[in-house]
Amino acid sequence: MNYRFQIVLLFTLTFSFLTHLEGQDDDVYMIKKIHDEALGKGKAYPWLTDLCTKHGERIAGSPAYLGAANYTKDILAGIKGVQSYHQPCESSYWKRGAKEQVKIIGKNGKNIRLSALSLGNSVATPTEGITAEVIEVQSLDEVEKLGKEKISGKIVFYNRPMDPTQLRTFSAYGGAVDQRVYGPSKAAEFGAVAALVRSMTTSLDDFPHTGVTIYKDSLNKIPGIAISTLDAEKLSRAIKKGPVNVFLKTNCQTIGMKSAPTVIGEIKGSVFPEEIIVVGGHLDSWDVGQGAHDDGAGCIQSMEVLRLFTALGYQPKRTIRCVLFSNEENGLAGGRTYAKLSNEKNEFHLAALESDSGGFSPKGFSFEADTSVFKSYYKHVSKWLPLLESYGLHFEMGGSGADIGPLKSQKGLLIGLRPDSQRYFDFHHTANDRIENVNKRELELGAAAMASLIYLIDKYGIK
Amino acid sequence: MNYRFQIVLLFTLTFSFLTHLEGQDDDVYMIKKIHDEALGKGKAYPWLTDLCTKHGERIAGSPAYLGAANYTKDILAGIKGVQSYHQPCESSYWKRGAKEQVKIIGKNGKNIRLSALSLGNSVATPTEGITAEVIEVQSLDEVEKLGKEKISGKIVFYNRPMDPTQLRTFSAYGGAVDQRVYGPSKAAEFGAVAALVRSMTTSLDDFPHTGVTIYKDSLNKIPGIAISTLDAEKLSRAIKKGPVNVFLKTNCQTIGMKSAPTVIGEIKGSVFPEEIIVVGGHLDSWDVGQGAHDDGAGCIQSMEVLRLFTALGYQPKRTIRCVLFSNEENGLAGGRTYAKLSNEKNEFHLAALESDSGGFSPKGFSFEADTSVFKSYYKHVSKWLPLLESYGLHFEMGGSGADIGPLKSQKGLLIGLRPDSQRYFDFHHTANDRIENVNKRELELGAAAMASLIYLIDKYGIK
Repeated sequence: MNYRFQIVLLFTLTFSFLTHLEGQDDDVYMIKKIHDEALGKGKAYPWLTDLCTKHGERIAGSPAYLGAANYTKDILAGIKGVQSYHQPCESSYWKRGAKEQVKIIGKNGKNIRLSALSLGNSVATPTEGITAEVIEVQSLDEVEKLGKEKISGKIVFYNRPMDPTQLRTFSAYGGAVDQRVYGPSKAAEFGAVAALVRSMTTSLDDFPHTGVTIYKDSLNKIPGIAISTLDAEKLSRAIKKGPVNVFLKTNCQTIGMKSAPTVIGEIKGSVFPEEIIVVGGHLDSWDVGQGAHDDGAGCIQSMEVLRLFTALGYQPKRTIRCVLFSNEENGLAGGRTYAKLSNEKNEFHLAALESDSGGFSPKGFSFEADTSVFKSYYKHVSKWLPLLESYGLHFEMGGSGADIGPLKSQKGLLIGLRPDSQRYFDFHHTANDRIENVNKRELELGAAAMASLIYLIDKYGIK
Repeated sequence: MNYRFQIVLLFTLTFSFLTHLEGQDDDVYMIKKIHDEALGKGKAYPWLTDLCTKHGERIAGSPAYLGAANYTKDILAGIKGVQSYHQPCESSYWKRGAKEQVKIIGKNGKNIRLSALSLGNSVATPTEGITAEVIEVQSLDEVEKLGKEKISGKIVFYNRPMDPTQLRTFSAYGGAVDQRVYGPSKAAEFGAVAALVRSMTTSLDDFPHTGVTIYKDSLNKIPGIAISTLDAEKLSRAIKKGPVNVFLKTNCQTIGMKSAPTVIGEIKGSVFPEEIIVVGGHLDSWDVGQGAHDDGAGCIQSMEVLRLFTALGYQPKRTIRCVLFSNEENGLAGGRTYAKLSNEKNEFHLAALESDSGGFSPKGFSFEADTSVFKSYYKHVSKWLPLLESYGLHFEMGGSGADIGPLKSQKGLLIGLRPDSQRYFDFHHTANDRIENVNKRELELGAAAMASLIYLIDKYGIK
């Protein structure tokens, strides 16, 4: 190596080292500014308060949903540099109707009312209601084992609790929710007249938790109803003493297809406008409560990401698209429609980040992608970990979000925000999912975490 | 190296490697069992519910405190293998008396009431109250700058908010609490007649937050009163429009020394009984609210550590002592007395762990010790990190707890549980610090984290 070459090499190395350092310093500074803005002058909390109090109970297809779609479109339009619009989406509209009546028929003539909510997409009971004996089971398998002889003509009561020893409540939910999703159809297969399901929560309280049930088309559709965990315990105790009859009356129905647009707000990329980065949540909620954690929080955090960039004068290189999906709860029409239209337009989503696990303290992100690209993407993003760890954020492999899932075939990176999960199922799908149960700072920190990661993806790409 | 020696070395290495692995497997299994027991069959939540609802408002020296001291001693005595007792402690007893009256004197004859709480250890106003003009300041320094001319005869209103951009709320608290602790005395130094202090929280709400104020003996003692953040904003707005007079009437007083025992429950060590490991919190709370997060949670978690060991049949090698300290809030008599008696008996505390940052999701531990021993201790405990990281627990250097601080001179390891801090100052020192605001699972996870670390310290020591 000659002297002249050594000098050149030394200069090049020094320069690239300095550039590298400077780049990192810039990132440290930008991520700090994002957090300062989100915590000091954030809009997430007042926006979520408005969404919850003015447009609660916004099941897809309902007038409340349309109100929320207009409200969020207008807010997005008010952020400098953002173009907002509705993406048309047709969604099945399911309506609960009058309050559910569920009661244990007392032997002494005194009935005991149970706190209940029909499951989403459930059929109603006949107008006169249903009275039948209840049989308690712990699983779908048990229904199969008991068979027609024991099940026929009965109300099947699924009472397997979520496992409290699971560290992550989503794992406990995953281990119990088959009872709600497939339980009514499984019971119908063996001649049951209705199904009751213990609410999906590790708490013992009086809130029934609704959520979708899925019918097998080939089978008779029977009513599916969630009862609160305290009432599930009560019913179980009664059954242990001898045969129990329960009266059920519900009048929910699927009304039919309705317009329920997905809401989009977009900042065009200044260098690679054809590379799209989505940040989103789902705008629909259940028809009870305000959809504060599920998923008003995720929507508002995604909107706040755009506002943070604008407020800090950050001009993205890539196209950043905030997408508030429709109908996640009972059909996923928003996510499917979005991906279909995107594929038709030959779009490429470099990355998509969904926040749909509640507005709690963020603990990090989980990543997934097509196996052909995942390893290189994950290796690349892992380099940013030192920038985020001081904010208590960690990376892991795992699922992203239901709405962005259909984008996987575009071979970009799919990401889920992972907040602390301990309180989520205190509120999930209940009348108690309200703004009072969202902590302002926790919500803001989630938005800041999302904006920080989106900033890095936008600035450096993922390969 | 000869052949025979190689064989011996290989055997030794293999054996020590296997032993090491086996030891780690045991620990993985034990820590999982601790978490399963705490989350599946934990007693922390029902115990804390009882403590809060039956023995709330338990300021040291009060009858409520004595009730709590008896309740917790009895629970500890009921855990197999635990000896429980009261350690006598004399504590200054301060009493709030009748509800505080704080109002802005309206120019139109209409007064505006402000939500207020006297600061702990504050003197009262004269019986007839105080009416004076309010002067708003942002700091103690500003009082000095304004000097006697501007301050004399006035009510000084400290209104510097906690910095919301601090990631950790405890840092924001640390940056603002000098106003509450030293503000009244500083104002008195320049002739003020009373001091109002903006409540220590980043929330905007109607809850005044009390907390201790410390008078300089050489100075006149003037009343110190906290007002809610919403009312601080209101008062500040009024002052911007022109001079504002406020009327204050309080009748708190320091009653004198009372008995307020520290509660101790102990499992004698089976191998090294002379090496003591403390796990504790402080049993006293303020005289408003139930002291649920501050610090009922820490006390109950510490009691649960002993129960977890007993329930799992774990026989500690070292002496594990659960200590529920008295009078942390307004004097620290419990911590000081405990350390003094311990030193007199020539005891050695190998380690002490305090939980006094609320019953929220645990994020890890912070460690401190005398500088002569800290490095080697920290290096040793850091080896356990892989066992705890899968539970979301991390280690850092930093403060431990006020009550265990006086043990530092014994040159053991002092440890603080670090829960998520975002919600702590929503409740801290207010009437809203109630059991409803404690999440069962978060409380249980804290107890499990503490038991896991204490188990490792007990089993392996710290050097």
